[in-house]
Amino acid sequence: MIQRVSELVSDFPEISELDLNPVFASKDGAIAADVRIVVDFAPQPERYRPSQEDIVRQMNRIMRPDSVAVIGASNEDGKIGNSVMKNLINGGYQGKIYPIHPKGGEIMGMTAYRSVLDVPGEVDVAVFAIPAKLVAGALEEVGKKQIPGAVLIPSGFAETGNVQGQEEIVAIARKHDIRLMGPNIYGFYYTPKNLCATFCTPYDVKGKAALSSQSGGIGMAIIGFSRSARMGVSAIVGLGNKSDIDEDDLLTFFEQDDNTEIIAQHCEDLKDGRAFAEAAKRVSKKKPVVVLKAGRTSMGARAASSHTGALAGNDKIYEDVFKQCGVIRARSLRDLLEFARGIPKLPTPKGENVVIITGAGGSGVLLSDACVDNNLSLMTMPDDLDAAFRKFIPPFGAAGNPVDITGGEPPATYKNTLRLGMEDPRIHAIILGYWHTIITPPMVFAKLVVEVKEEMAARGIEKPIVASLAGDVQVEEAAEYLYEHGVPSYAYSTEIPVAVLGAKYKWARGAGKI
Amino acid sequence: MIQRVSELVSDFPEISELDLNPVFASKDGAIAADVRIVVDFAPQPERYRPSQEDIVRQMNRIMRPDSVAVIGASNEDGKIGNSVMKNLINGGYQGKIYPIHPKGGEIMGMTAYRSVLDVPGEVDVAVFAIPAKLVAGALEEVGKKQIPGAVLIPSGFAETGNVQGQEEIVAIARKHDIRLMGPNIYGFYYTPKNLCATFCTPYDVKGKAALSSQSGGIGMAIIGFSRSARMGVSAIVGLGNKSDIDEDDLLTFFEQDDNTEIIAQHCEDLKDGRAFAEAAKRVSKKKPVVVLKAGRTSMGARAASSHTGALAGNDKIYEDVFKQCGVIRARSLRDLLEFARGIPKLPTPKGENVVIITGAGGSGVLLSDACVDNNLSLMTMPDDLDAAFRKFIPPFGAAGNPVDITGGEPPATYKNTLRLGMEDPRIHAIILGYWHTIITPPMVFAKLVVEVKEEMAARGIEKPIVASLAGDVQVEEAAEYLYEHGVPSYAYSTEIPVAVLGAKYKWARGAGKI
Repeated sequence: MIQRVSELVSDFPEISELDLNPVFASKDGAIAADVRIVVDFAPQPERYRPSQEDIVRQMNRIMRPDSVAVIGASNEDGKIGNSVMKNLINGGYQGKIYPIHPKGGEIMGMTAYRSVLDVPGEVDVAVFAIPAKLVAGALEEVGKKQIPGAVLIPSGFAETGNVQGQEEIVAIARKHDIRLMGPNIYGFYYTPKNLCATFCTPYDVKGKAALSSQSGGIGMAIIGFSRSARMGVSAIVGLGNKSDIDEDDLLTFFEQDDNTEIIAQHCEDLKDGRAFAEAAKRVSKKKPVVVLKAGRTSMGARAASSHTGALAGNDKIYEDVFKQCGVIRARSLRDLLEFARGIPKLPTPKGENVVIITGAGGSGVLLSDACVDNNLSLMTMPDDLDAAFRKFIPPFGAAGNPVDITGGEPPATYKNTLRLGMEDPRIHAIILGYWHTIITPPMVFAKLVVEVKEEMAARGIEKPIVASLAGDVQVEEAAEYLYEHGVPSYAYSTEIPVAVLGAKYKWARGAGKI
Repeated sequence: MIQRVSELVSDFPEISELDLNPVFASKDGAIAADVRIVVDFAPQPERYRPSQEDIVRQMNRIMRPDSVAVIGASNEDGKIGNSVMKNLINGGYQGKIYPIHPKGGEIMGMTAYRSVLDVPGEVDVAVFAIPAKLVAGALEEVGKKQIPGAVLIPSGFAETGNVQGQEEIVAIARKHDIRLMGPNIYGFYYTPKNLCATFCTPYDVKGKAALSSQSGGIGMAIIGFSRSARMGVSAIVGLGNKSDIDEDDLLTFFEQDDNTEIIAQHCEDLKDGRAFAEAAKRVSKKKPVVVLKAGRTSMGARAASSHTGALAGNDKIYEDVFKQCGVIRARSLRDLLEFARGIPKLPTPKGENVVIITGAGGSGVLLSDACVDNNLSLMTMPDDLDAAFRKFIPPFGAAGNPVDITGGEPPATYKNTLRLGMEDPRIHAIILGYWHTIITPPMVFAKLVVEVKEEMAARGIEKPIVASLAGDVQVEEAAEYLYEHGVPSYAYSTEIPVAVLGAKYKWARGAGKI
């Protein structure tokens, strides 16, 4: 069978993927019970694939530059080259900024150069804010200046049918060994450097999540959500047409970037599935990688193809690849965002034993459902631990798991049970279900949870805690307070906190941490 | 086979449900390919089941009372009987309020009676705010006074193991023909009467959604979410132990309640599945019925059993029953809440043709995925309509479906394409994907959408419109504005608006409207 398969693939070069699984082999022969064939009648030329060392070297200069040239910098309000300049300056970037404009002069109080070739010092990255038709010429100069990276904001390339124009700039880039980000992007943010190399509004909440998107619209949603949720971000990157730099380059950069602890990517296709799989498999062992693959369904794939020309491919293949590579697959945009926000807040669990402690029995039921939905194991409560919990809760409360402390309990009950849950080494993660009462108001609950968490941390005890808050609107403030203090918490939802914990577990298992 | 099945069921009375599906019948006999047997070794005594007319007559007096007695009314801050009095008065209830207290006197400026028997006029409903052990005695008096309903806030009955105490009050209720709500509940709200018969904070955003919960904690989440989202509510009801009034009584009441257009229920079990199925099947033909069944999973069911003693049952049966009855099943608490909020905003679609109009191509892809996930049909665009859309969008935009108007378009492009979508009778529902730009800022987009919607409504054209907004934080305000004007809209999410539309479609199909 192996021989015949190899012959088949040789005879039909348009077969780009062939998967036989399962194959039943007996002494009489082999039968493939399921076969998946992906054909591609217009095979792409092989993509440029630098070594890991080269990627790291160039990406470090692009993403963490000491000097930025803005090609098409402008004093004129409303121009992209003006927005980029403003964002660099107002964002607080401390490196050198070189505005480039054919007329020279002064732009936003800085000396403007007629060409990057006129810039006295070294330049790490050039941000392009000029029309598509001028890009090739400027890129030649970028190459002559030996600038390692070009951020191509302009649209008007492959996405509008101008495939040739895009091929031309890729050829120039290869000739000069320039890495290209884009074209057709909003640019990128790298907060540790206070770098807003984009025409969008600045972003300044520093943190450990690195996000990227293929689409500009989704990028805007990432920025809006992040700002609204005060999500700590290390980078937000637009990949657009992905003429060169793509998801695996970012993975390889963020892998060694100490400011990044989680990588969350939106994509519509993978230009080089094999390179992605290799990078993801390696990186996900160190840092969680979350991917929202748009175009999951037939209709979505059709839309992706008309949007970016993405060959969305068979989703089953993506599913398998993500699974094999330890990638956490987000099913929705909100999942991508919530996972990026929540996962870095949580310490890595040391085992599978999850315990729910809840004031609201009703939340306990829904939280249990959510545990099953998210592949979490509700610990079977050992007798001694059960007895220990029972000491703190009313006789009609239920120990077991969920530990139902019942509504109407004072702060001490939440405190005692949470402390017990943190202290017992057999418990590896805790889900809290809070019920808003007069006796334990939302902020009292939030503060006691943080207090216990910090008391334990001082003693070297760290476990993931997430919380679901049922109550009147004051629970929103409490949820925010908890989130800021390392406890991903959600008002009016039993599902989202458990999904975030589930995602952390998924990564921990894939990375061999459990 | 039918004969043998009937013999089996006769021989084993503990078989409470038996489902053979599918059965392959041929001339040689019949073979059941799948059989589901539900056994119940402790069959419950049959529940009280009044006629539909009796339910309506009594529930109307309970839910829309002209006079309310508060048994256990109190002047003392922090007491439940004090909170209930305050909520009735401050909520703006215009009917008669009779505080009942063994000492008589005056409570909150009103004459207090020693017993309901001393109240001069007729009483429609008695709200109990006294300890469990005093309930039976007071309930006898309620019976003698011929009050048709008792709202039993007190806990300390079956949920704490006091099954006998609960049986006792049910017996008293049956003797006097009193319907019981609870015990172990927060009470209920009925906004058209400004009635807050509960110890929770008042709720006053009037609207068409009637919500109920079995659990008090979930009830608090309903109140908090509703207030936060300014969801228009007709009623919020706590069902607690469901000693008598349960989901089907509420369905039957809300069915004929002109102030209610959608019924959303959280439950952990159904005390009488058959009665629920009958009521739901009938009611869902008129008004959407959404149910969040907690205890879906094995772990959840176990937690439910320990929480309310709920026999969660085989979830497959619930799934089938809900499907057969046209019930929209919510998979999460947020879904329940978002569906309750969004469905009544949307007019009923007249057909299956959904069109996506988007500024962000990336949103278009995710919105398409969401359509497939929610069983929505993306219309195959007829050539003439395709050409008509193309007139309004840039040459590199994509018509087809999604209609990708591309980013950077002015308000007129959104306006023209939306207007075309509304005007063409072949299109039945519209999903908008907005991309935040300087040229069309969020509130400009929101206002133009409402403008077109209202212009069309004036011409008698109504179609469901939902929107997904990608952008910086200003999109949140725009989403709220749109929601308030009848367009369920969500910032940073492509999934939720489509899920809401999908739920509306699910109902419309089940009710035979499409």
